Amino acid sequence: MWKRLLSSTSSRLVTGVVTVASTSFFAYRYGQASSTGQSLLPLGSTAKLSSLKPPQYCPESEIPNIMSKIQQLGISVVNSKPEIDHHTGNDFTTHKPLPNEVPQFIIYPDSTEQVSQALKILNEYKVPVVPFSGGTSLEGHFHSTRRGVVIDTSKLNKILAINDNDLDVVVQAGVNWQDLNQVLEPYGLMFGTDCGHNGLISGMIGTNASGINASRYGAMSANVISVTAVLPDGTIIKTRNRPRKSSAGYNLTNLFVGSEGTLGIVTEAVCKVYPIPKSETVVVVQFPSILDSTNAVAQVFRSGIQPTAIELLDKDMMHCLNYSGYTTRDWLECPTIFFKIGGINETVVKENVNILQQIMQANHANAFVFAQNKQEQEELFSARKNAFYAMINYGKNEIDEDVRIWVTDIAVPLSKLSKVLNEINSLIKASPFQSIILAHAGDGNFHADIFYKHEQRAEVEQLVNKMIELGLQNEGTCTGEHGVGNAKRNFLQLELGSDTIDLMRKIKLAVDPNRILNPDKIFKIDPTDPGEY
Amino acid sequence: MWKRLLSSTSSRLVTGVVTVASTSFFAYRYGQASSTGQSLLPLGSTAKLSSLKPPQYCPESEIPNIMSKIQQLGISVVNSKPEIDHHTGNDFTTHKPLPNEVPQFIIYPDSTEQVSQALKILNEYKVPVVPFSGGTSLEGHFHSTRRGVVIDTSKLNKILAINDNDLDVVVQAGVNWQDLNQVLEPYGLMFGTDCGHNGLISGMIGTNASGINASRYGAMSANVISVTAVLPDGTIIKTRNRPRKSSAGYNLTNLFVGSEGTLGIVTEAVCKVYPIPKSETVVVVQFPSILDSTNAVAQVFRSGIQPTAIELLDKDMMHCLNYSGYTTRDWLECPTIFFKIGGINETVVKENVNILQQIMQANHANAFVFAQNKQEQEELFSARKNAFYAMINYGKNEIDEDVRIWVTDIAVPLSKLSKVLNEINSLIKASPFQSIILAHAGDGNFHADIFYKHEQRAEVEQLVNKMIELGLQNEGTCTGEHGVGNAKRNFLQLELGSDTIDLMRKIKLAVDPNRILNPDKIFKIDPTDPGEY
Repeated sequence: MWKRLLSSTSSRLVTGVVTVASTSFFAYRYGQASSTGQSLLPLGSTAKLSSLKPPQYCPESEIPNIMSKIQQLGISVVNSKPEIDHHTGNDFTTHKPLPNEVPQFIIYPDSTEQVSQALKILNEYKVPVVPFSGGTSLEGHFHSTRRGVVIDTSKLNKILAINDNDLDVVVQAGVNWQDLNQVLEPYGLMFGTDCGHNGLISGMIGTNASGINASRYGAMSANVISVTAVLPDGTIIKTRNRPRKSSAGYNLTNLFVGSEGTLGIVTEAVCKVYPIPKSETVVVVQFPSILDSTNAVAQVFRSGIQPTAIELLDKDMMHCLNYSGYTTRDWLECPTIFFKIGGINETVVKENVNILQQIMQANHANAFVFAQNKQEQEELFSARKNAFYAMINYGKNEIDEDVRIWVTDIAVPLSKLSKVLNEINSLIKASPFQSIILAHAGDGNFHADIFYKHEQRAEVEQLVNKMIELGLQNEGTCTGEHGVGNAKRNFLQLELGSDTIDLMRKIKLAVDPNRILNPDKIFKIDPTDPGEY
Repeated sequence: MWKRLLSSTSSRLVTGVVTVASTSFFAYRYGQASSTGQSLLPLGSTAKLSSLKPPQYCPESEIPNIMSKIQQLGISVVNSKPEIDHHTGNDFTTHKPLPNEVPQFIIYPDSTEQVSQALKILNEYKVPVVPFSGGTSLEGHFHSTRRGVVIDTSKLNKILAINDNDLDVVVQAGVNWQDLNQVLEPYGLMFGTDCGHNGLISGMIGTNASGINASRYGAMSANVISVTAVLPDGTIIKTRNRPRKSSAGYNLTNLFVGSEGTLGIVTEAVCKVYPIPKSETVVVVQFPSILDSTNAVAQVFRSGIQPTAIELLDKDMMHCLNYSGYTTRDWLECPTIFFKIGGINETVVKENVNILQQIMQANHANAFVFAQNKQEQEELFSARKNAFYAMINYGKNEIDEDVRIWVTDIAVPLSKLSKVLNEINSLIKASPFQSIILAHAGDGNFHADIFYKHEQRAEVEQLVNKMIELGLQNEGTCTGEHGVGNAKRNFLQLELGSDTIDLMRKIKLAVDPNRILNPDKIFKIDPTDPGEY
């Protein structure tokens, strides 16, 4: 079922670029104006893929002329090789674009108005458009499956307002969250979402990113108050005003958060921020088993303690840390949790640590280390922060100089986490692969990262598929924080069922009748799309 | 602009029930099957009201026959006078249904499957359907503007699972949140949302309800993990699996939360729950001015303290409390905040109270009272809990035996709260009315509740409109927690602009092409609808 249909690649290429000649063959109704100025949608509440005709895009040969129209409006358009390469794919993902999945031009708007002007023209001519943010996605979110153009919003990088007493900020889409944190620090404030270094706000919105601090501050869906977005036809909307709470109609804010650029291009957002904890410490606890560690986490939550971070590293990850020597300490090689505990003052943090320690002892902790000062905190947490590099170091030295790592992103309810991790461990043991597990345990979200060599790709993919199926069988999701892109569409279908996907597709078709925005992401929009597996 | 067009009532009645005779007059395309098995939608990303034809519903005379079909499936259908009355309106809202806004039948499904079976038939025959939950809405959410039928989900009232170690519950739509709390208490758990006594989960989802504890636990949008919903055509979907965090496609969960029954009928939900704080106290602080009180709240947040509740009562409300004698204490009649502070133990709560006290003193607090024990806590907080009854008591005795109260629901960013409340105070002083203000200050959400007599309705409405406009001018919302219904549609338009509403309408039309589900709520779906004002 999950076997990649390599033979289908060529048919996908044909679908990717519908030329003028093929128009008569791909008879279509979709997105084409009817004589009454209306478009046609399947009846009923959902849109089944089989009810659609393939989308009809502008012939590739016409795109240069359309770009001239956009340039004439004073909007920057480029197509140098480095620019095209940068917007085609990135080095750190396993899921690569197909050889022909290359954008033709990159558009760099410098305002919401320019995004709107560009989209009006692109929609009129039915040019496929991929919105581009930091380019750090792992799941093919910005692959140009239709060889159209990219709109890169990274030049929209201004912080527009810091409303310190409202604990919110107004930012443009291209602001980097770490840059934002630097600006916020003098106010004693911080952004809640802590993910990859190069993440920009709009990409984090697109995938509903979360990261290390989500067990306390939630994912992006919990941190965006309002967005300004440009719809596929160029209409500019703002989803909400600035109050932290509102029941003003449909929650369009959270419809855009996690929609992966398929419904509109986000150009601005109002985001929540948080006071930097007045006191903070790091506690590292080592356990005889995964079950002990997850039982401990459940009891921490029930005690009312709200750690900022609850990061679980399995014995293999601890081995990589020891191997790499990236921390001064020599760790036991067993399941280990890194807790970050913040509070309003030192006394409160100590009370939290005392209760935490009792819970850990009751759950058979082998070792309990807590930082006595700021320097020790950083030293301790650096083990977690350096995990990725330690893993690469180990893989390159012990497996293959050209080793690759497949990063999974399963999340399950916390009560199922140890069972699933143990079963995943069995799958790994029965395979020729080595792996490590890094879990945002507070969210039940884990990355089982598997080392493999180029020639083992098909085999490792089988293993990953089994892992994801295991997650889904345990009320889980195939993606806790990285999103679907075009790499996990089949798993999304398996996870939520056809009807739920068909509802998403109906909404997509209503908002984007010409199917120009980030085509083929999250779910299929073309019945001739053969899919990934 | 906001003047109610009383003369339009009669034309509305005509629109409300489109009879067979009028079909040829109201030429329509919408929701009617085209010969290709597709429906027609306006081109572009949004749906302007002016681009639509009026909806075409089943003639009223055919509804009894359609009910027979539904009854033959074993589904309960009633139309006794008490049932009809109960589902027509409620006593405690100012916004009453028009005389002809009466449902014809009430359907009581006992399963998701029955909701689906009923909707399939109702959609086929284009019968308008109003979903009904606890019936406590203030904004006309369940008014039968189209004289169709009601689907009452209150019999779906089972708690299906308590996943105590995942801090979630699986409940049917008709579960009452207080009943749920009783069942949760032995587990040391509680539901986060604390609103009106009779609220049921599905209604709280429909309006994105929040209430007293939202400054800590958020509104319903922050507390619903997944919903099971029946779409207008009978399709059953589940939005997500059960992990607390997911990036699995569009956030349909939060599209249903706050959609006021216009997109589907929610029959089940997975909701977050929280540990009951191990230690808790109540602190009451009285201030010389509103500005001092809101400055204090902003500093509390920046200190990192997370109160469970931050309830502001203005001097008029404090006067009503003293007047009614519902608490043993005699209060200063000045702006007063009731804080609830919870924590993992008594030491932590005391540390919070100490810092709170310093902040209050720095903001000129006149009085600072904190509970020494559980009994004092309840006694103190009862002043807030009894506010509504104290207000009614005062109004009945001092204004009119038949006094009415108009409850507003504005929310603004916290930094604008004191300015807006002071300006509202000026509006009140310049009017013939008395009012009180009850604010969920942590959320910037306040209810300015105005006493009026029946014959003053038009005049009080003018005043309320000015208050809402003031809120909107200050980046606010016309509804912090009660929702839009059909009472605030014009304000929603003013708040978010036509394009944002047109996007909501486009989504509505895609999911509900026949416009059968809760017609005329949140925004207009009929160009001949004259509106409220």
